[in-house]
Amino acid sequence: MASNLHRVVIIGGGFAGVRAAQALANAPVQITLLDKRNYHLFQPLLYQVATGGLSPGEIAAPLRAIFARQKNVEVLLEHVLNFDLAAREVHTSSGSVPYDTLIVAAGAKSTYFGKDQWRAHAPSLKSIEDATLLRARIFEAFEEAEKTKDPAQRRAWLTFLIVGGGATGVELAGALGEIANDTLRHDFRSIRPEEARIMILDAGSRILSNFSPALSQSAERQLIELGVRCRNNVRVKDISPEGATVLTPEGESFFPARTVLWAAGVTGSPLAEALSKAANVPLARGGRIAVEPDCTVPGHPEVFVLGDLAYFDHSAEGDSSVRKGSSAALPGVCQVAMQMGDYTGALIAARLRGKTKPAFRYFDRGNMAVIGRHRAIAQVGPFGFSGYFAWLLWVFIHVIYLVSFESRVIVAFRWAFSYFTFNRGARLITRPALSRPPLLPGA
Amino acid sequence: MASNLHRVVIIGGGFAGVRAAQALANAPVQITLLDKRNYHLFQPLLYQVATGGLSPGEIAAPLRAIFARQKNVEVLLEHVLNFDLAAREVHTSSGSVPYDTLIVAAGAKSTYFGKDQWRAHAPSLKSIEDATLLRARIFEAFEEAEKTKDPAQRRAWLTFLIVGGGATGVELAGALGEIANDTLRHDFRSIRPEEARIMILDAGSRILSNFSPALSQSAERQLIELGVRCRNNVRVKDISPEGATVLTPEGESFFPARTVLWAAGVTGSPLAEALSKAANVPLARGGRIAVEPDCTVPGHPEVFVLGDLAYFDHSAEGDSSVRKGSSAALPGVCQVAMQMGDYTGALIAARLRGKTKPAFRYFDRGNMAVIGRHRAIAQVGPFGFSGYFAWLLWVFIHVIYLVSFESRVIVAFRWAFSYFTFNRGARLITRPALSRPPLLPGA
Repeated sequence: MASNLHRVVIIGGGFAGVRAAQALANAPVQITLLDKRNYHLFQPLLYQVATGGLSPGEIAAPLRAIFARQKNVEVLLEHVLNFDLAAREVHTSSGSVPYDTLIVAAGAKSTYFGKDQWRAHAPSLKSIEDATLLRARIFEAFEEAEKTKDPAQRRAWLTFLIVGGGATGVELAGALGEIANDTLRHDFRSIRPEEARIMILDAGSRILSNFSPALSQSAERQLIELGVRCRNNVRVKDISPEGATVLTPEGESFFPARTVLWAAGVTGSPLAEALSKAANVPLARGGRIAVEPDCTVPGHPEVFVLGDLAYFDHSAEGDSSVRKGSSAALPGVCQVAMQMGDYTGALIAARLRGKTKPAFRYFDRGNMAVIGRHRAIAQVGPFGFSGYFAWLLWVFIHVIYLVSFESRVIVAFRWAFSYFTFNRGARLITRPALSRPPLLPGA
Repeated sequence: MASNLHRVVIIGGGFAGVRAAQALANAPVQITLLDKRNYHLFQPLLYQVATGGLSPGEIAAPLRAIFARQKNVEVLLEHVLNFDLAAREVHTSSGSVPYDTLIVAAGAKSTYFGKDQWRAHAPSLKSIEDATLLRARIFEAFEEAEKTKDPAQRRAWLTFLIVGGGATGVELAGALGEIANDTLRHDFRSIRPEEARIMILDAGSRILSNFSPALSQSAERQLIELGVRCRNNVRVKDISPEGATVLTPEGESFFPARTVLWAAGVTGSPLAEALSKAANVPLARGGRIAVEPDCTVPGHPEVFVLGDLAYFDHSAEGDSSVRKGSSAALPGVCQVAMQMGDYTGALIAARLRGKTKPAFRYFDRGNMAVIGRHRAIAQVGPFGFSGYFAWLLWVFIHVIYLVSFESRVIVAFRWAFSYFTFNRGARLITRPALSRPPLLPGA
């Protein structure tokens, strides 16, 4: 590679980073993609790994494999530490990387809103390691329930609390409902898995509040069919290995449960803070960086922030596709990330030709949440769907979007198979000794 | 289940334990299968997980799924601690389990022959956790080589030492050769993966010494085609994060290598020691329990030891199928374990009908080792095969033996796909921070 080419450094191999690099395939640039992982993760299917439906390798594609034939991309496995915007350098754990244009697309992580001590008792779902931990906890709980003779303990092992009624919480709860009602139906001798109590604890007045009230209600009905109950207007006060203490409109109460899963909130990667200091801009809501209409950092047209890390609050400026009643800032979903990546790649290529492009406009193709087999809700423009058709739509869209061809075919195949057998073959409990902290003495 | 049924307790859900339970499907017994894992592992394909060819879920089947419809089997996730043969009880971490007949099939673990400090620098391959650790180390090494500018460091990152020239060592080396020559061919910009040095360090005079000399030589030739070199008559003196010090007939030498994999030896599970004390019999070679011709422990006709834990030294007693020149004790391979499981299940069922069976006889269906795509060796009775036909035989036998139908189809499919693309989609580096201990200060 000629060293006098325009140097684009991309931090993060998620949807935004990968799409930006791909959009620059034919541009006269030299791209360095930095990620602390060696794979691109298809995050929307992470809950399937957590519930034993898919294996990690089936929802991840090696970044090097994605860019094997795109010779202007160099992939480096690096931990990014800081930025020097004046010198135009990224500092990593093994040195500094110079850039002419920088794309920061480092994504989001789960947040416990200052209660980090809850993390050990209520793991969340952002990485493959998280997913295999959740998987171990879920299937371990049924094993422990089978072993115990004490009815109260058995009930606590068979109770699953999911904190947060957004898409991740609903997907986890729906998959748990399927596990209890179908997958494990014949597997135990002492317990009946279908007696599991699965409960979504949601702080708002309805689950999936980014959908219309009618679709929220439909989702709740579909969850009830799977044995999942939704508790709304519930705030978590404390989480321990024995369960969760919550505040409801009726007062405080304690739910005994040995498995609590956290799906209540995300915040920007720690790199957002480093970048906000380097660029001297305040951190926006949710630990994100507020960007200009062209996705750049204010005062730094050569620095882009994309995807979950970007706080993009310009959609209402004359864009009729913004859903009524939703927050003006774009949501942290992969559609937004992909479109920002496409846009930014095209904008950088245009700039190198001495041109520019109009501001980024998000085209909302629709929004969907899956609840289980044959169960989902979907909002596409003014149209709402629920049940079987919404689920078919969800399957179709997710399968075609899977990045690598191999994953696409394997996933489709395994799903087709699961469809007929209800089997979840990937329900391995790996690392059993580490996956759950011990109970306090005397508990 | 009626509680007056004959109680069979099986420890270990490997090939021997599963087959014994299945052989008792129609017997008037109540079976309790104890395992510390919730899955049966198809160990012969573990090296495929370690080298990114298959995902863990594809070579493991949940024990509960295997026995979902066999109602006389109860599966419990337990750590077995000890035995009380007089009281006929197994002690586990959560209580004791009474039995009328006991089957101990707890398998083997890797041994460093007293040098346990080598384990951190040279991981071995017995579990799924081991395999994902090896996978991380292997693919991390290429990443580090890509990043470093120092030629000596780069060479050390691109050098892979495999200690042990048995089937596992050869399979790992062959898969590494494929990774370097095919899978990663287009993936890097600074290094050429095919420059990787892959070396088998074997203590004996030839690799795969349980095969005929001609087949050993053929295996070595096939490895050379993949860029793998075999060093024979080499003894490891020390292993550090920087490489291995070895004693050769020519003297001591040091091989700089950042990745050392241990495939040099196995020993019986720690339960062998507990059982030898409980039964007052000495431990046999390789940390195993010497068994009677009917696979029982001397003096305890109600206690069976099967599979890798059994030292069965009766095959030469009038059995013409024993290969000349091989050790008289049966090898620790899954064929032996499966046949012992079948035999023991049938013997227990016969006893319950007031009958008995003749001594266990191993029928050796043949022996094979795979070296890579289109490359293998196989010995079937007096016939030796190598190359393409041996590989086809290996693929055929391994695919049909995979326990669950789902795994069988998925594996076949993924292999068919890999065959055309050379892709290894499961090459995820998970847990990168933990997978390799830090270098010593000053190193």
